[in-house]
Amino acid sequence: MDSQPDDTGIPEAMEAPERRRFLKTAALGLAGASLAPAVWAQGSPDAPPPIPDWMKIPGADTAANPYGLPSLHEGHVVRKLSVAKQAQSASSRTPLEKLDGILTPNGLFYERHHAGVPDIDPAQHRLMVHGLVERPLVFSMADLRRFPSVNRIHVLECSGNQNFSYKDKVTAGDIMGLVSCAEWTGVPLRTVLEEAGIKPGAKWVVAEGADAAAMTRSIPLEKCLDDVLLVYSQNGERLRPEQGYPLRILVPGYEGNMSVKWLRSLQLREEPIYSREETSKYTDLMPDGTAREFTFVMEAKSIITYPSGGQKLDGPGFHEISGLAWSGSGKIERVEVSTDSGQTWTDARLQGPVLPICMTRFRHAWQWDGTPTTILSRAIDETGYVQPDLQTILDARGRNSTYHNHAIQPWIINENGKVSNALA
Amino acid sequence: MDSQPDDTGIPEAMEAPERRRFLKTAALGLAGASLAPAVWAQGSPDAPPPIPDWMKIPGADTAANPYGLPSLHEGHVVRKLSVAKQAQSASSRTPLEKLDGILTPNGLFYERHHAGVPDIDPAQHRLMVHGLVERPLVFSMADLRRFPSVNRIHVLECSGNQNFSYKDKVTAGDIMGLVSCAEWTGVPLRTVLEEAGIKPGAKWVVAEGADAAAMTRSIPLEKCLDDVLLVYSQNGERLRPEQGYPLRILVPGYEGNMSVKWLRSLQLREEPIYSREETSKYTDLMPDGTAREFTFVMEAKSIITYPSGGQKLDGPGFHEISGLAWSGSGKIERVEVSTDSGQTWTDARLQGPVLPICMTRFRHAWQWDGTPTTILSRAIDETGYVQPDLQTILDARGRNSTYHNHAIQPWIINENGKVSNALA
Repeated sequence: MDSQPDDTGIPEAMEAPERRRFLKTAALGLAGASLAPAVWAQGSPDAPPPIPDWMKIPGADTAANPYGLPSLHEGHVVRKLSVAKQAQSASSRTPLEKLDGILTPNGLFYERHHAGVPDIDPAQHRLMVHGLVERPLVFSMADLRRFPSVNRIHVLECSGNQNFSYKDKVTAGDIMGLVSCAEWTGVPLRTVLEEAGIKPGAKWVVAEGADAAAMTRSIPLEKCLDDVLLVYSQNGERLRPEQGYPLRILVPGYEGNMSVKWLRSLQLREEPIYSREETSKYTDLMPDGTAREFTFVMEAKSIITYPSGGQKLDGPGFHEISGLAWSGSGKIERVEVSTDSGQTWTDARLQGPVLPICMTRFRHAWQWDGTPTTILSRAIDETGYVQPDLQTILDARGRNSTYHNHAIQPWIINENGKVSNALA
Repeated sequence: MDSQPDDTGIPEAMEAPERRRFLKTAALGLAGASLAPAVWAQGSPDAPPPIPDWMKIPGADTAANPYGLPSLHEGHVVRKLSVAKQAQSASSRTPLEKLDGILTPNGLFYERHHAGVPDIDPAQHRLMVHGLVERPLVFSMADLRRFPSVNRIHVLECSGNQNFSYKDKVTAGDIMGLVSCAEWTGVPLRTVLEEAGIKPGAKWVVAEGADAAAMTRSIPLEKCLDDVLLVYSQNGERLRPEQGYPLRILVPGYEGNMSVKWLRSLQLREEPIYSREETSKYTDLMPDGTAREFTFVMEAKSIITYPSGGQKLDGPGFHEISGLAWSGSGKIERVEVSTDSGQTWTDARLQGPVLPICMTRFRHAWQWDGTPTTILSRAIDETGYVQPDLQTILDARGRNSTYHNHAIQPWIINENGKVSNALA
């Protein structure tokens, strides 16, 4: 089990054998709280819970849904449009606070489209590789599947995720749901570029999508030769239409809009192309009127998903704080949690395996004494970068830009256990 | 990137720079083959592929499906009923040959039900922990979610997967599709058992499901205290109904039927309960008339998914052989591939991270010269166990039992590139 390490989460302060009894009413202040498990019939083992109705009749057919769906009881777990009535140039958010683990199911993977979701026939789809190459080439999907492939588990995040507008944002998903994580399968872009032959002088690769926006971004050639993939599958199955079916580029750790979907063209050039999407959008206006351009890397970030905005603690006692951390620069090294409004910080446990540019689940055992407080988390990645607080970012970059906010997210817990966004 | 290791899959025999050109017609014998990428307009860059229709109109709305679905072009990628007209006590298979990576999307995760899929209200569902415990307890789902949790990526496999009946089985999914792999989130069973207090003498935990079959299996207490989980989420979201919503037990590495779904009762006992499912079923009848009982561990296994039965190689030249390997006993140590009908074997590359009791994707670069052959793979796990061939298993165990076949799967490739099941 050494590759999936973690510890048991037992609070250090609880001594054996009592420390094992998380929900014990006396030890944990849960007396009268409805969440303590019932002691079965107070020693009368003749009175188990009644046989439920669903044991009395056969259930639904096997493969009634040859492609299955979640339980109807989970119908509220869906993606949420960020801004209503902008359905084609718009985004939808992953409900981070309703999910566990590190992977995002494809049905809940966040979306950001600039001209809606095209319906592409994979048999007709082509990828052009041209510009500063020895042999301009046109690939069908079958051609691309002939190349040696790799899998990677990577996080993908919109550069506008979190932005600086906290008003009316209640849940973790509302605030930071333009991020998701999946296993990707595809061809290293390096292999395909070398098939075409890179000409001297090529320094940038311009990726263009086959959507009506012809979404276009310039990517440094050096990055393309490192870890960029041409992806056709996600979480085991072929890409979903919203994720670029049948082909997208995946630029690990860089802002999500560079991972161009419905990829149709890769042009090698000496200079970036300065497309609409890298001039009018996706540059960061600074307080002095200058703009930061090509701010590719997504910084280290974290968010507590339990307890988080819109949730309610059912009472004082033991609660496992849980959340997600990630960085565009590599692995998460540590996540620190504060339960006293930022006065003191403690290392959270990281769930293994901890992978580079990947969601990392952190957990922290906590005894809530019932008094109001603010809880926070901050990520530290393997480069040593420490996730800053909002004021630090505003002091450095101002509030003109909507991109690359990666501030610590504080959650207020009131005396009733209700959790709310401290930045709203 | 050290935690997601692999190499590029470049065949050693191909020298730089030519070795980089996988699809080069002259080097790889692909002259005239339709799969070589087109050289774009023979040096006339003014004639790119035409603008496709789907770039000329805006696409579908963002979040048109708040819970997304695969592309309609992938409608054939579904689970397949193993035996028609046995819809409630039946199984459905994962289409392994149509998937990439190691994870199985929840919509395609294999099914095995003994009395159909119950529709359980999670608010009403209860788990009893009783028998040889200090404090018999009844847990709601909310109670269980209060405990410290862990994530694990594990394979799950039906003990009847593969069995000994190869007739009419064409594809990898047909033969071996009662296996899938997912990220699971839940509570270590050890934590819950220690909450109830284990009485001296307890040696087995009997798990019972809340389906109409009251599916019941005995699990050794030692295993329960090691790595068994009470699982409520799979691949990030809550369990699907077919996978035991809202609660199942997950017994890593043991035959799938022990990971009882819709879990309602855990009874601690001195002896196993010898339920119907561990006497009339899930014992292995040997040639001498004795039965092997409690054959828990799923042995090391592998299968090539490309090229595999029902597929067709589009011509001689470079092909990347790809497949899946797993073992109930720990990590996959090596996978060997033979492309000459078993005369010689070569180590395949393993895609990292290689995790214990988890699917491992292997790949092997191959130059097919166009002559008929048989290709095979065999897994070796970290205990040193080597996946045997069918005859070795039949010699040892006979053909009376349908369980625990884990024989090497040979695929015949004929002169036209057509792939078929050598054991059919």
